[in-house]
Amino acid sequence: MIKRIEVLKEGRFSEKGMQKFLIHDSPYFRVLNFNFMSGQELGIHSHEAEGQLSIVVIEGEGEFLGKEGLTLPANTGDVLISDIREPHGILAISDMRVIVTIAPPL
Amino acid sequence: MIKRIEVLKEGRFSEKGMQKFLIHDSPYFRVLNFNFMSGQELGIHSHEAEGQLSIVVIEGEGEFLGKEGLTLPANTGDVLISDIREPHGILAISDMRVIVTIAPPL
Repeated sequence: MIKRIEVLKEGRFSEKGMQKFLIHDSPYFRVLNFNFMSGQELGIHSHEAEGQLSIVVIEGEGEFLGKEGLTLPANTGDVLISDIREPHGILAISDMRVIVTIAPPL
Repeated sequence: MIKRIEVLKEGRFSEKGMQKFLIHDSPYFRVLNFNFMSGQELGIHSHEAEGQLSIVVIEGEGEFLGKEGLTLPANTGDVLISDIREPHGILAISDMRVIVTIAPPL
């Protein structure tokens, strides 16, 4: 199995809120594209599950959000690694595209 | 556990060949940054192991390489998903940065 996805072409933006697009799902990992317009947010959340996730910013700038008011810059090329159990979120400052990988999938 | 890595700052290029940088390693996944100067290549290879990998192009343009001469465009925002067992490689046309995720790690 080998496949290519053009995220800049497939991933959409909407004024209604963050847009989510499933790139791949398997027993090994789930890969998603999230697109935010400036000011949109993925609220802080966590799941009671084993595993970790990565968030790769492929375009734009924003902030990674964590517990107790933690904010970290989330600019193109930045990667966040987090336990699935650890609270995490994203706030877009400009329009912003990220790739999220969850291993193993929830 | 939550951590942020600035790949555009940490990832290096070298005229000697592709540069590799370990972002994260855990029982769930291994995340690496590979940087290529124009013309550099990660030759086609595969591993006899369970699992899958993703390659996210965060900067530049090139080609994903596969078996039997397969080439697919590898431009900013493109994602390749492949079984670890499936032959795969990368050829850089411009300077190019990619994030590779292997789940589970070899």
